[in-house]
Amino acid sequence: MDSTTMLYEYQHRIALAVTFDYGSNHNAREIECAKQHCFKLNIEHIVISLDFMAKYFKSSLLSGADDIPEGSYNDDNMKSTVVPFRNGIMLSIACGLAESRHLTTVMMANHSGDHTVYPDCRPEFVDSMSEAMSNGTYDNIRISAPYTHLTKGDIATIGKRIGIDYATTYSCYKGGELHCGVCGTCVERKEALAFANINDTTPYLK
Amino acid sequence: MDSTTMLYEYQHRIALAVTFDYGSNHNAREIECAKQHCFKLNIEHIVISLDFMAKYFKSSLLSGADDIPEGSYNDDNMKSTVVPFRNGIMLSIACGLAESRHLTTVMMANHSGDHTVYPDCRPEFVDSMSEAMSNGTYDNIRISAPYTHLTKGDIATIGKRIGIDYATTYSCYKGGELHCGVCGTCVERKEALAFANINDTTPYLK
Repeated sequence: MDSTTMLYEYQHRIALAVTFDYGSNHNAREIECAKQHCFKLNIEHIVISLDFMAKYFKSSLLSGADDIPEGSYNDDNMKSTVVPFRNGIMLSIACGLAESRHLTTVMMANHSGDHTVYPDCRPEFVDSMSEAMSNGTYDNIRISAPYTHLTKGDIATIGKRIGIDYATTYSCYKGGELHCGVCGTCVERKEALAFANINDTTPYLK
Repeated sequence: MDSTTMLYEYQHRIALAVTFDYGSNHNAREIECAKQHCFKLNIEHIVISLDFMAKYFKSSLLSGADDIPEGSYNDDNMKSTVVPFRNGIMLSIACGLAESRHLTTVMMANHSGDHTVYPDCRPEFVDSMSEAMSNGTYDNIRISAPYTHLTKGDIATIGKRIGIDYATTYSCYKGGELHCGVCGTCVERKEALAFANINDTTPYLK
Protein backbone atom coordinates (compact mmCIF):
# COMPACT_ATOMS: atom_id res chain seq x y z
CA MET A 1 0.00 0.00 0.00
CA ASP A 2 2.69 2.48 1.05
CA SER A 3 5.13 1.97 -1.83
CA THR A 4 2.32 1.82 -4.37
CA THR A 5 0.85 5.10 -3.12
CA MET A 6 4.29 6.74 -3.33
CA LEU A 7 4.82 5.32 -6.81
CA TYR A 8 1.58 6.90 -8.02
CA GLU A 9 1.92 10.18 -6.12
CA TYR A 10 5.52 10.78 -7.27
CA GLN A 11 5.37 8.98 -10.63
CA HIS A 12 6.73 11.96 -12.57
CA ARG A 13 9.87 12.12 -10.41
CA ILE A 14 10.61 8.37 -10.38
CA ALA A 15 13.10 7.01 -12.94
CA LEU A 16 13.56 3.52 -11.53
CA ALA A 17 11.68 1.29 -9.09
CA VAL A 18 13.36 -1.56 -7.23
CA THR A 19 11.77 -4.48 -5.42
CA PHE A 20 14.02 -6.56 -3.19
CA ASP A 21 13.44 -10.27 -3.04
CA TYR A 22 14.84 -11.17 0.37
CA GLY A 23 13.14 -14.50 0.75
CA SER A 24 10.14 -13.37 2.79
CA ASN A 25 6.88 -15.25 2.59
CA HIS A 26 5.16 -12.42 0.74
CA ASN A 27 7.90 -11.40 -1.69
CA ALA A 28 6.51 -13.28 -4.69
CA ARG A 29 3.10 -11.61 -4.41
CA GLU A 30 4.68 -8.22 -3.73
CA ILE A 31 6.91 -8.46 -6.81
CA GLU A 32 3.96 -9.39 -9.00
CA CYS A 33 1.99 -6.32 -7.82
CA ALA A 34 5.00 -4.00 -8.16
CA LYS A 35 5.60 -5.18 -11.73
CA GLN A 36 2.01 -4.54 -12.73
CA HIS A 37 1.91 -1.02 -11.29
CA CYS A 38 5.28 -0.02 -12.79
CA PHE A 39 4.20 -1.38 -16.17
CA LYS A 40 1.00 0.64 -15.96
CA LEU A 41 2.91 3.84 -15.10
CA ASN A 42 5.72 3.12 -17.59
CA ILE A 43 8.40 3.19 -14.87
CA GLU A 44 11.40 0.86 -15.20
CA HIS A 45 11.25 -1.87 -12.55
CA ILE A 46 13.99 -4.23 -11.47
CA VAL A 47 14.05 -7.04 -8.90
CA ILE A 48 17.18 -7.53 -6.82
CA SER A 49 17.59 -10.83 -5.06
CA LEU A 50 19.14 -10.85 -1.59
CA ASP A 51 19.62 -14.59 -1.10
CA PHE A 52 21.99 -14.16 1.82
CA MET A 53 19.18 -12.91 4.07
CA ALA A 54 17.26 -16.19 4.05
CA LYS A 55 20.53 -18.01 4.64
CA TYR A 56 22.04 -15.94 7.44
CA PHE A 57 19.42 -13.60 8.95
CA LYS A 58 16.95 -14.43 11.70
CA SER A 59 13.32 -13.28 11.37
CA SER A 60 9.88 -14.91 11.41
CA LEU A 61 9.30 -13.06 8.13
CA LEU A 62 11.85 -15.36 6.51
CA SER A 63 10.93 -18.63 8.13
CA GLY A 64 7.48 -19.56 6.85
CA ALA A 65 3.88 -18.40 7.17
CA ASP A 66 3.19 -20.44 10.32
CA ASP A 67 5.65 -18.36 12.31
CA ILE A 68 3.97 -15.02 11.50
CA PRO A 69 2.30 -13.66 14.63
CA GLU A 70 -1.34 -12.58 14.48
CA GLY A 71 -2.82 -9.43 15.99
CA SER A 72 -1.98 -5.76 16.08
CA TYR A 73 1.34 -4.13 15.15
CA ASN A 74 1.72 -2.66 18.59
CA ASP A 75 2.00 -6.05 20.19
CA ASP A 76 5.41 -7.16 21.25
CA ASN A 77 5.24 -10.36 19.22
CA MET A 78 5.51 -8.37 15.98
CA LYS A 79 9.15 -7.90 16.89
CA SER A 80 9.78 -11.39 15.52
CA THR A 81 9.04 -10.03 12.03
CA VAL A 82 11.96 -7.60 12.15
CA VAL A 83 14.56 -8.39 9.50
CA PRO A 84 17.72 -6.90 11.01
CA PHE A 85 18.66 -3.58 9.32
CA ARG A 86 16.56 -4.48 6.29
CA ASN A 87 15.92 -0.87 5.30
CA GLY A 88 19.57 0.05 5.74
CA ILE A 89 20.52 -2.72 3.33
CA MET A 90 17.84 -1.87 0.77
CA LEU A 91 18.59 1.87 0.93
CA SER A 92 22.35 1.26 0.52
CA ILE A 93 21.84 -0.83 -2.58
CA ALA A 94 19.36 1.69 -3.98
CA CYS A 95 21.94 4.39 -3.27
CA GLY A 96 24.61 2.55 -5.29
CA LEU A 97 22.12 2.03 -8.11
CA ALA A 98 21.21 5.73 -8.04
CA GLU A 99 24.87 6.78 -8.26
CA SER A 100 25.41 4.31 -11.13
CA ARG A 101 22.63 6.05 -13.06
CA HIS A 102 23.28 9.64 -11.96
CA LEU A 103 20.03 9.88 -10.04
CA THR A 104 19.95 12.18 -7.02
CA THR A 105 17.43 10.72 -4.59
CA VAL A 106 16.31 7.43 -3.10
CA MET A 107 12.66 7.38 -2.03
CA MET A 108 11.18 5.17 0.65
CA ALA A 109 7.60 4.89 1.94
CA ASN A 110 8.11 4.26 5.65
CA HIS A 111 5.41 5.74 7.89
CA SER A 112 4.81 6.52 11.55
CA GLY A 113 2.94 3.26 12.25
CA ASP A 114 6.22 1.40 11.63
CA HIS A 115 8.20 3.35 14.20
CA THR A 116 7.39 1.31 17.30
CA VAL A 117 8.46 -2.08 16.00
CA TYR A 118 11.02 -1.28 13.29
CA PRO A 119 13.98 0.92 14.30
CA ASP A 120 15.03 1.26 10.64
CA CYS A 121 11.78 3.10 9.86
CA ARG A 122 12.21 5.90 12.42
CA PRO A 123 12.96 9.53 11.46
CA GLU A 124 16.34 9.51 13.24
CA PHE A 125 17.38 6.45 11.23
CA VAL A 126 16.24 8.02 7.96
CA ASP A 127 18.09 11.28 8.73
CA SER A 128 21.39 9.62 9.65
CA MET A 129 21.18 7.15 6.75
CA SER A 130 20.57 10.05 4.37
CA GLU A 131 23.65 11.79 5.81
CA ALA A 132 25.73 8.60 5.35
CA MET A 133 24.58 8.26 1.75
CA SER A 134 25.38 11.88 1.02
CA ASN A 135 28.84 11.55 2.58
CA GLY A 136 29.54 8.25 0.86
CA THR A 137 28.74 9.27 -2.74
CA TYR A 138 30.17 11.72 -5.28
CA ASP A 139 26.69 13.01 -6.13
CA ASN A 140 25.63 13.44 -2.49
CA ILE A 141 22.62 11.22 -2.89
CA ARG A 142 19.91 11.69 -0.27
CA ILE A 143 16.78 9.94 0.98
CA SER A 144 13.32 11.33 0.48
CA ALA A 145 10.80 9.76 2.86
CA PRO A 146 7.66 11.85 2.43
CA TYR A 147 5.42 9.63 4.58
CA THR A 148 7.69 9.38 7.64
CA HIS A 149 5.32 11.38 9.82
CA LEU A 150 2.05 10.16 8.27
CA THR A 151 -0.04 7.22 9.44
CA LYS A 152 -1.03 4.39 7.12
CA GLY A 153 -4.55 5.85 7.27
CA ASP A 154 -3.18 9.16 5.93
CA ILE A 155 -1.44 7.28 3.12
CA ALA A 156 -4.69 5.51 2.21
CA THR A 157 -6.37 8.93 2.14
CA ILE A 158 -3.79 10.15 -0.40
CA GLY A 159 -4.36 6.98 -2.44
CA LYS A 160 -8.09 7.52 -2.39
CA ARG A 161 -7.63 11.02 -3.80
CA ILE A 162 -5.35 9.69 -6.57
CA GLY A 163 -7.78 6.86 -7.28
CA ILE A 164 -5.58 3.87 -6.44
CA ASP A 165 -7.37 0.50 -6.34
CA TYR A 166 -5.83 -1.05 -3.23
CA ALA A 167 -7.26 -4.47 -4.12
CA THR A 168 -4.37 -4.56 -6.62
CA THR A 169 -1.81 -4.23 -3.79
CA TYR A 170 -0.58 -6.96 -1.47
CA SER A 171 0.23 -6.64 2.26
CA CYS A 172 -0.09 -10.02 4.01
CA TYR A 173 3.03 -11.26 5.79
CA LYS A 174 1.86 -14.86 5.37
CA GLY A 175 2.21 -14.58 1.60
CA GLY A 176 -0.78 -16.75 0.61
CA GLU A 177 -2.87 -16.39 -2.56
CA LEU A 178 -5.43 -14.44 -0.50
CA HIS A 179 -4.69 -12.02 2.37
CA CYS A 180 -5.02 -13.91 5.69
CA GLY A 181 -6.81 -10.95 7.30
CA VAL A 182 -5.38 -11.57 10.78
CA CYS A 183 -1.60 -10.95 10.72
CA GLY A 184 -0.23 -7.57 11.82
CA THR A 185 -0.03 -6.13 8.31
CA CYS A 186 -3.52 -7.37 7.37
CA VAL A 187 -5.02 -5.81 10.51
CA GLU A 188 -3.18 -2.55 9.79
CA ARG A 189 -4.29 -2.62 6.15
CA LYS A 190 -7.95 -3.06 7.06
CA GLU A 191 -7.78 -0.25 9.63
CA ALA A 192 -6.08 2.14 7.19
CA LEU A 193 -8.63 1.52 4.43
CA ALA A 194 -11.47 1.97 6.94
CA PHE A 195 -9.88 5.21 8.20
CA ALA A 196 -9.86 6.57 4.64
CA ASN A 197 -13.47 5.46 4.07
CA ILE A 198 -12.40 3.20 1.22
CA ASN A 199 -14.71 0.35 0.29
CA ASP A 200 -12.25 -2.51 0.82
CA THR A 201 -12.81 -5.09 -1.92
CA THR A 202 -9.72 -7.15 -1.00
CA PRO A 203 -10.71 -10.81 -0.53
CA TYR A 204 -9.56 -11.89 2.96
CA LEU A 205 -9.47 -15.43 4.35
CA LYS A 206 -10.81 -14.15 7.70
CA MET B 1 46.66 -6.10 3.40
CA ASP B 2 44.36 -3.84 5.41
CA SER B 3 41.67 -6.38 6.32
CA THR B 4 44.24 -9.08 7.01
CA THR B 5 46.16 -6.81 9.37
CA MET B 6 42.96 -5.94 11.20
CA LEU B 7 41.99 -9.62 11.39
CA TYR B 8 45.29 -10.46 13.07
CA GLU B 9 45.48 -7.38 15.29
CA TYR B 10 41.91 -7.76 16.59
CA GLN B 11 41.59 -11.57 16.32
CA HIS B 12 40.44 -11.97 19.92
CA ARG B 13 37.51 -9.58 19.41
CA ILE B 14 36.34 -10.97 16.07
CA ALA B 15 33.54 -13.56 16.07
CA LEU B 16 32.78 -13.61 12.36
CA ALA B 17 34.55 -12.49 9.18
CA VAL B 18 32.69 -11.75 5.96
CA THR B 19 34.06 -11.46 2.44
CA PHE B 20 31.75 -9.99 -0.19
CA ASP B 21 31.92 -11.40 -3.68
CA TYR B 22 30.69 -8.50 -5.77
CA GLY B 23 31.99 -9.68 -9.11
CA SER B 24 35.25 -7.72 -9.14
CA ASN B 25 38.27 -9.03 -11.02
CA HIS B 26 40.16 -9.78 -7.82
CA ASN B 27 37.37 -11.26 -5.68
CA ALA B 28 38.31 -14.91 -6.26
CA ARG B 29 41.90 -14.38 -5.12
CA GLU B 30 40.78 -12.23 -2.19
CA ILE B 31 38.30 -14.85 -0.98
CA GLU B 32 40.96 -17.57 -1.16
CA CYS B 33 43.35 -15.50 1.00
CA ALA B 34 40.62 -14.54 3.48
CA LYS B 35 39.61 -18.18 3.91
CA GLN B 36 43.17 -19.26 4.63
CA HIS B 37 43.79 -16.55 7.24
CA CYS B 38 40.45 -17.13 9.02
CA PHE B 39 41.10 -20.87 9.08
CA LYS B 40 44.53 -20.24 10.58
CA LEU B 41 43.06 -17.96 13.27
CA ASN B 42 40.03 -20.19 13.87
CA ILE B 43 37.58 -17.38 13.03
CA GLU B 44 34.32 -18.26 11.28
CA HIS B 45 34.35 -16.95 7.70
CA ILE B 46 31.43 -16.60 5.31
CA VAL B 47 31.24 -15.37 1.72
CA ILE B 48 28.26 -13.32 0.66
CA SER B 49 27.60 -12.98 -3.03
CA LEU B 50 26.32 -9.65 -4.36
CA ASP B 51 25.43 -10.64 -7.92
CA PHE B 52 23.37 -7.54 -8.54
CA MET B 53 26.46 -5.33 -8.55
CA ALA B 54 27.98 -6.88 -11.66
CA LYS B 55 24.58 -6.68 -13.31
CA TYR B 56 23.52 -3.14 -12.45
CA PHE B 57 26.50 -1.14 -11.14
CA LYS B 58 29.05 0.75 -13.21
CA SER B 59 32.77 0.49 -12.31
CA SER B 60 35.98 -0.52 -14.07
CA LEU B 61 36.53 -2.83 -11.10
CA LEU B 62 33.62 -4.92 -12.33
CA SER B 63 34.25 -4.86 -16.05
CA GLY B 64 37.48 -6.79 -16.63
CA ALA B 65 41.20 -6.45 -15.98
CA ASP B 66 41.87 -4.48 -19.17
CA ASP B 67 39.82 -1.56 -17.90
CA ILE B 68 41.83 -1.16 -14.67
CA PRO B 69 43.88 2.04 -14.82
CA GLU B 70 47.60 1.91 -14.08
CA GLY B 71 49.55 4.39 -11.96
CA SER B 72 49.14 6.02 -8.58
CA TYR B 73 45.98 6.21 -6.46
CA ASN B 74 46.03 9.96 -6.49
CA ASP B 75 45.48 10.10 -10.22
CA ASP B 76 42.05 11.02 -11.40
CA ASN B 77 41.71 7.87 -13.48
CA MET B 78 41.42 5.75 -10.32
CA LYS B 79 37.93 7.19 -10.00
CA SER B 80 36.81 4.62 -12.57
CA THR B 81 37.43 1.89 -9.96
CA VAL B 82 34.84 3.31 -7.57
CA VAL B 83 31.97 0.87 -7.01
CA PRO B 84 29.13 3.21 -6.03
CA PHE B 85 28.46 3.11 -2.25
CA ARG B 86 30.21 -0.25 -1.98
CA ASN B 87 31.20 0.21 1.66
CA GLY B 88 27.71 1.43 2.59
CA ILE B 89 26.27 -1.77 1.13
CA MET B 90 28.83 -4.08 2.75
CA LEU B 91 28.53 -2.36 6.14
CA SER B 92 24.72 -2.53 6.04
CA ILE B 93 24.74 -6.24 5.37
CA ALA B 94 27.38 -6.80 8.06
CA CYS B 95 25.19 -4.77 10.42
CA GLY B 96 22.18 -7.03 9.75
CA LEU B 97 24.38 -10.09 10.26
CA ALA B 98 25.70 -8.65 13.51
CA GLU B 99 22.18 -8.01 14.83
CA SER B 100 21.15 -11.54 13.81
CA ARG B 101 23.97 -12.92 15.98
CA HIS B 102 23.82 -10.42 18.84
CA LEU B 103 27.22 -8.96 18.02
CA THR B 104 27.79 -5.31 18.87
CA THR B 105 30.30 -3.96 16.38
CA VAL B 106 31.14 -4.05 12.68
CA MET B 107 34.82 -3.54 11.91
CA MET B 108 36.24 -2.14 8.68
CA ALA B 109 39.85 -1.51 7.63
CA ASN B 110 39.56 1.68 5.59
CA HIS B 111 42.57 3.99 5.80
CA SER B 112 43.53 7.56 4.97
CA GLY B 113 45.04 6.67 1.57
CA ASP B 114 41.54 5.76 0.37
CA HIS B 115 40.00 9.10 1.25
CA THR B 116 40.80 11.01 -1.94
CA VAL B 117 39.24 8.60 -4.38
CA TYR B 118 36.59 6.75 -2.36
CA PRO B 119 34.00 8.89 -0.55
CA ASP B 120 32.73 5.82 1.35
CA CYS B 121 36.11 5.47 3.09
CA ARG B 122 36.21 8.97 4.63
CA PRO B 123 35.80 9.63 8.36
CA GLU B 124 32.60 11.65 7.88
CA PHE B 125 31.05 8.71 6.01
CA VAL B 126 32.11 6.22 8.68
CA ASP B 127 30.72 8.44 11.47
CA SER B 128 27.34 9.00 9.84
CA MET B 129 27.04 5.35 8.77
CA SER B 130 27.79 4.28 12.33
CA GLU B 131 25.06 6.64 13.53
CA ALA B 132 22.60 5.20 11.00
CA MET B 133 23.41 1.64 12.07
CA SER B 134 22.99 2.52 15.72
CA ASN B 135 19.64 4.22 15.06
CA GLY B 136 18.43 1.41 12.81
CA THR B 137 19.07 -1.54 15.14
CA TYR B 138 17.75 -2.70 18.50
CA ASP B 139 21.26 -3.37 19.77
CA ASN B 140 22.66 0.00 18.59
CA ILE B 141 25.35 -1.62 16.51
CA ARG B 142 28.29 0.64 15.67
CA ILE B 143 31.27 0.71 13.32
CA SER B 144 34.84 0.41 14.54
CA ALA B 145 37.32 1.66 11.93
CA PRO B 146 40.64 1.74 13.77
CA TYR B 147 42.76 2.53 10.68
CA THR B 148 40.72 5.49 9.39
CA HIS B 149 43.47 7.99 10.13
CA LEU B 150 46.45 5.71 9.40
CA THR B 151 48.26 5.35 6.08
CA LYS B 152 48.73 1.99 4.38
CA GLY B 153 52.40 2.31 5.39
CA ASP B 154 51.33 2.58 9.05
CA ILE B 155 49.18 -0.53 8.62
CA ALA B 156 52.11 -2.45 7.13
CA THR B 157 54.17 -1.34 10.15
CA ILE B 158 51.56 -2.85 12.48
CA GLY B 159 51.61 -6.03 10.40
CA LYS B 160 55.37 -6.22 10.59
CA ARG B 161 55.21 -6.04 14.37
CA ILE B 162 52.59 -8.82 14.48
CA GLY B 163 54.61 -10.89 12.01
CA ILE B 164 52.14 -11.07 9.12
CA ASP B 165 53.54 -12.53 5.89
CA TYR B 166 52.07 -10.15 3.31
CA ALA B 167 53.01 -12.48 0.45
CA THR B 168 49.93 -14.45 1.62
CA THR B 169 47.66 -11.45 0.95
CA TYR B 170 46.31 -10.28 -2.39
CA SER B 171 45.81 -6.68 -3.55
CA CYS B 172 45.87 -6.47 -7.37
CA TYR B 173 42.76 -4.97 -9.00
CA LYS B 174 43.47 -6.92 -12.20
CA GLY B 175 42.88 -10.21 -10.39
CA GLY B 176 45.51 -12.33 -12.16
CA GLU B 177 47.36 -15.31 -10.70
CA LEU B 178 50.30 -12.95 -9.95
CA HIS B 179 50.08 -9.30 -8.87
CA CYS B 180 50.43 -7.07 -11.97
CA GLY B 181 52.66 -4.63 -10.08
CA VAL B 182 51.43 -1.54 -11.94
CA CYS B 183 47.77 -0.92 -11.07
CA GLY B 184 46.90 1.60 -8.35
CA THR B 185 46.59 -1.00 -5.60
CA CYS B 186 49.83 -2.76 -6.60
CA VAL B 187 51.74 0.54 -6.58
CA GLU B 188 50.23 1.41 -3.19
CA ARG B 189 51.06 -2.06 -1.85
CA LYS B 190 54.72 -1.83 -2.89
CA GLU B 191 55.06 1.65 -1.38
CA ALA B 192 53.48 0.58 1.93
CA LEU B 193 55.71 -2.48 2.29
CA ALA B 194 58.77 -0.36 1.46
CA PHE B 195 57.66 2.28 4.00
CA ALA B 196 57.54 -0.41 6.70
CA ASN B 197 60.94 -1.80 5.65
CA ILE B 198 59.40 -5.16 4.85
CA ASN B 199 61.29 -7.43 2.48
CA ASP B 200 58.55 -7.78 -0.17
CA THR B 201 58.60 -11.38 -1.43
CA THR B 202 55.37 -11.00 -3.45
CA PRO B 203 55.96 -12.14 -7.04
CA TYR B 204 54.94 -9.27 -9.37
CA LEU B 205 54.56 -9.41 -13.16
CA LYS B 206 56.27 -6.01 -13.47
